[in-house]
Parts: sequence; structure tokens; C-alpha cells
Amino acid sequence: MKIVCPKNLLHQATNYVLRAVSSKTGNEILDNVFLSADKQSNTLLLRGYDLECGIETKIKADVYEAGDMLVPARLLGDIAAKLEEGDVTITCDENYKTVISAGKSKFNFMTRPTADFPSLPEISGNLTFTLPQDRFQKLIKQAIIAVSTDLSRPAFNGILFNANEKNLELVAIDGFRLAISRHAYDERMPKVEKPFRLLIPGKALKILQPLLGSEDLVTLKVDNKQVEFNLGSLKLVSRLLTNEFMKYESLLNSNGDTTIVINRSQFLAGLERMLLIMNVSDRRLPIRLQTTDESSLQIDVVSEKGQAHEDIAVSVQGQMIDIDYNPIYFTDALRVIDDELVQINFAGSLGPCIIKPMTGDDYEFLILPLRR
Amino acid sequence: MKIVCPKNLLHQATNYVLRAVSSKTGNEILDNVFLSADKQSNTLLLRGYDLECGIETKIKADVYEAGDMLVPARLLGDIAAKLEEGDVTITCDENYKTVISAGKSKFNFMTRPTADFPSLPEISGNLTFTLPQDRFQKLIKQAIIAVSTDLSRPAFNGILFNANEKNLELVAIDGFRLAISRHAYDERMPKVEKPFRLLIPGKALKILQPLLGSEDLVTLKVDNKQVEFNLGSLKLVSRLLTNEFMKYESLLNSNGDTTIVINRSQFLAGLERMLLIMNVSDRRLPIRLQTTDESSLQIDVVSEKGQAHEDIAVSVQGQMIDIDYNPIYFTDALRVIDDELVQINFAGSLGPCIIKPMTGDDYEFLILPLRR
Repeated sequence: MKIVCPKNLLHQATNYVLRAVSSKTGNEILDNVFLSADKQSNTLLLRGYDLECGIETKIKADVYEAGDMLVPARLLGDIAAKLEEGDVTITCDENYKTVISAGKSKFNFMTRPTADFPSLPEISGNLTFTLPQDRFQKLIKQAIIAVSTDLSRPAFNGILFNANEKNLELVAIDGFRLAISRHAYDERMPKVEKPFRLLIPGKALKILQPLLGSEDLVTLKVDNKQVEFNLGSLKLVSRLLTNEFMKYESLLNSNGDTTIVINRSQFLAGLERMLLIMNVSDRRLPIRLQTTDESSLQIDVVSEKGQAHEDIAVSVQGQMIDIDYNPIYFTDALRVIDDELVQINFAGSLGPCIIKPMTGDDYEFLILPLRR
Repeated sequence: MKIVCPKNLLHQATNYVLRAVSSKTGNEILDNVFLSADKQSNTLLLRGYDLECGIETKIKADVYEAGDMLVPARLLGDIAAKLEEGDVTITCDENYKTVISAGKSKFNFMTRPTADFPSLPEISGNLTFTLPQDRFQKLIKQAIIAVSTDLSRPAFNGILFNANEKNLELVAIDGFRLAISRHAYDERMPKVEKPFRLLIPGKALKILQPLLGSEDLVTLKVDNKQVEFNLGSLKLVSRLLTNEFMKYESLLNSNGDTTIVINRSQFLAGLERMLLIMNVSDRRLPIRLQTTDESSLQIDVVSEKGQAHEDIAVSVQGQMIDIDYNPIYFTDALRVIDDELVQINFAGSLGPCIIKPMTGDDYEFLILPLRR
């Protein structure tokens, strides 16, 4: 194989596919990036794949000799970043002697046969769905905060994509909180022909999220086992989770006894200050949220280090509250909301509270209290 | 004690003194910042001190009740960073109940008696010396690269300040290389009345370096055991090293057989690329520097991962070279030089090479070759 391509394209493409390379698979061949040069289309395909999630992208290249090869992922990333701007030449001979050169720099090393490197699964695509990347990015950003990394509860490791009659809803639950983000159908995200539900691993969506962000469309193609996100120049494929997702709809119907309206950034800054008095190991300590009148929220925490108190202007409707919470569940949610004002509905000291927008239903963050 | 001061002043002052707080002393009291409020001058003094190096700074404050107190250093730093802009109130009562508050935030915690917190040593000041901060910063930046962290050779842990008839010279040696930076006397750094030599711990200079940088003056005050750097609003005190420094002058007299002139940033970028083919544990691997004609320098390295080659345009005078070096010694030096062109004098494959400016003697970096 022999190709010449611009350094900046190689660098960017390498950064993309490296996101799907994991050194934790126990399979050394997956520590490589797969390169495939096609002479007819004059393109270089790059692939990273850890068997759970894979990324493929293609760049323009002058292909002098078609072929496939593997390059150690980390080394390719380092070299692609540091080479001089300009053309990069990559060659690999039949003995796997590999040369990457640019300007007056040259790297020689041995690589290994490509035979065992897996292809991405082909998605038959009995279901496709299209939405704008930037909106999709925001939907993921909000729902992903409640994805659990506890592998013993697989359904908690994914985000449910619930395309129903009204909107697309992303939902994650970790047993103590629930995060929902929603987007109503419109001309850029047309209503689905038939409602569907998918459970997509949080890991794949975490990898995908920073690659989104333009106003271009992303197309989801789904079969029974896999989902493909196609961004045009790049595609990411992930297995689907087949575990049953919790029936969460009824949780959201509680009306609650108290509604407070609060400035999001003031609330967040106050909570972040209170975390300073807690050691990292204390981060499960309760914070006490308390209203004693209709215009202020008192927050208190007591840790080994000392006590912290915040007093935040709010407007309270309904009964006064005095409830303990895990502060991290609030800071996680408040950080992914853009609105300046939010409302929080409380359902007593045993029921969940729900953070919502002042109008509409773009997001809901449900948080269970801690028992005293 | 009770004071009120602006948050931004407290934040900046805390950042300064935290640089001298070490959690590795084994003495818990030194994990604190010492605060002292003086009613007459309406100032708050802050001090961090690990017994080797200490920093004191003063800020304007409204002192309602004079007194001293300790605050856990990390906690003070965190709180000072995160409080709302505006006034901060700090109080400590006779039972060491401490409150830090600003706006509607309040932190309560217990602190400890100040009695055991050490004062900075008084410097009798039989020798003083003044120079501009920005020039001093650059002098330290260049010499400090050759300070060794090997505690078994104390003289290698410091920088020699050699104020001689001609200039101020800073020198560090680690056994394999030597770094010298020099500044000639001028109106802003008048010639010393009497030449002196001091050996100042690299650790203190590393702490001091980022605090310099303005065009203001820094005054050194020295007695037999200690040195004080006075920056006006801040002073840093360090013990002196009393070990004998190596007689280095004769090392610099070798004329060498070869001089090459090279573009500093091209040389540095080439070496940084070559490091990519070396594992971190390989970083002592030799790079081979070789000239085969008068216009190019060939650099080669062979590691477990593979080989890398760079070809850099130079102009060679004298004999051709073929010598092995530790690449890190070159990259360290090239990173702290501002000039675009430098000259390197080589004294064969056994003698040291010296990196110098094209004109003048602002710096010299001497590097020993590796034996083949």
C-alpha cells in the first residue's frame, strides 16, 4: 500500500477514529487503526473498533498502490499530530515494513497483518431516522448525565431513544435519578412513520457527542442488534442494548406540593461552593434544602471539614420544604441546562423532585431525596 | 480576629502563598496558611511556609479585630476561588470557630492555634542586590533546566548565582549537562560592589519564577543561611545551599572541532517528533547526530517501536560529526531559548557540545555525549 495525503486531513481523521480505540479489550490487534486505500475513489479509509463501538471515516488521498494495513493507534495519533504541515506519505510493503514520512521526517516501523482486524457490522437498515447534529448533541448532553457506569445493571448503562407520536425523547436512569431530553418533530426532524424505542449504550453516545455540533444532519440506521450514526464523512456503529428499560412514564406524573422558581446559575454556583467543604469521599453527604418563607431557599451541609450555608433568592409556591439530596445530582443537571430560570417541583420529603423548564418540556431531571 | 477584604485580593494573595505550602512536610500545621490582621495598617498578612521556602504577602483589609489565625491551605484556596465577587468577611473567635462569608454564602469550620506556626527567618541583609523581575525570570528559566532532583547530590539541586566583575551568571549542573544564563550589568541592574556567589535551591526558584514577570525590581537580601526575594507586595525566603559547587569555568573553554549553525525551532520540532518513536522508558535512548556534508544534520534513533529519521538544514564548519546524545538534554535547552538561530560547538565524540547564541554570551548549554 502507498498513499499520499494532506497532514491536516490525516490528523483530523485519526483523532476521530482514535475515539473508538480502547486499550482495554485485551485483544492487542484492536490497539491499531485499520487503514484501507482504494485506488478507484482515491480515498483512504480509517477505522477504529473495540467490538462494542466502531468509527470509520474516509479522506481524499493519492493512492499509488491500493491495500490495507494496521498502524498502532497511539503512534499514528502522535505522528499525525506532530508532522510538518504538507503531504504525508504512508507505505507498507508485503513484509509489513511501514514508513510514514513528511518533509524531512521519516518513521520506520513494523506493523502486523490486517487479516484479524474486524469489519464494522453491516446494518440492514429496516429503520432510518434523521435529525440535525447540533440538536442531537444537546439531547445527548442532557440525558447522558443519568447514565450509570455500574455494569451489573445493563439497562442503566444506556440511553433510551423513544420516538413517540409527539417527539423524540432521550431517557437515562441510574436508580436514583432520571434525565429526559426531548425534541419535537419539525421540518428538520420529520415525524417518524412508526414509533420506535432503542436502548443505545451511553459509551457510544459519549464518543459520538463531541463529533456532532454542525448543523448538518445525522442519519440513524438500525437493525435488531446494531445502530449506525452516519454523519456523512464519518460513521459510528454501536451494538444496541437489549435489556428492558424501566417504565418511567408514571414517575413524571406526580404533581407535587411545592414549586420553586430559581436562577439556575446562582443555584449551581452556590452548590459548587458547598462542595468545597466536602471531601471527595464525602460527595454522597446530603445537602439540606429548606424553605422558611416564600422568597428564599436555604441550603446547608455538614461535613468532617465544617459547615457551609447558602441562601438563594427563589419564589416558592405551595408548602414549605425541608428535604435532603445528593448535591451532585443537582449540579450535574444544572450544568447541562441553558435556561436562566428553572422550576423545581417537590413532592414532599419522600417523593422525587423534578427540575423543568419554565415553559415547554425540553428536559426533565427527576431526583430522589435521601432518607434522613 | 475579624477582617473584611475584597474577594479578588484574597484570591490572588492565597494563590501566591499556596505555592509555598507543601503537604509533604509530615507536619500538619504547615498544611495551613497563617493569617495575621493588623489594625493600625489595616492589612491582612498571609504566609505559607514549609520550613525550606516561605512566602508572605499583605493585602489591604478592613480590620475590625486584630489577631492571627490558621486556615487549612487547600480549603482557603478553594473558597477564595469560588466565592462571589465582592467583600469577604473572615472571623475567628477565641475557641477557633472560624467563619468565612461573602454575599449569601457562609462557611463555618474549626481551626487550630497559631502558636506553632513558624515565622519566616529575619534576614540580616549584609548583602543586597537588585534586578528587574522580567530579566530575572528569564535567567531562572534557562538555568533551571539543569537542576537535578537527585537529593543525594545537594549541590546539583541548586542554581549558583555568580555575580562577578562582568555580569550576573546563573549556573546549574546535573552531572551530564550544564546550563548557564547571564545578564550584563546596566542601569537597571547596577554592578555589585563586591562579587558574590550563592547557591539557591532550585525548588525555591521554581516557586518564584512564575511570580516574577513584571518590569518592577526584585531585591535579594542575603545572610549566611538564607536569601530573601522581595517583590514589593510579596517576599519569598529560602534557605541557601552550603555545598561546594563544581568548578565549571574550565569546561567552557574547549574550542571544539566543529561548529554548526541551526534553526532552533526546526531542530526542536524534529527532536520532538523523534521522541514519538520512543516509549517514555526509552527516553534515555541515544539519538545519533551526524553530518555527512556541510549543509545538513542527520538525526537517527532506533527504539523498540521502530526508527525515526530527521534531516535538518544547517551550516557546518570544521570536521564532520557522528555523536550520540540524550535527546531530552537538547529539547530542554532549545525550549528555553528565544533566538531563531543558534550555534553548537562540538568537541568530538567524547567532549561536550555547547549550544550558544550567534553573538554574545547570554546563555550556554553544555551537554555530554553518550558513549557508544
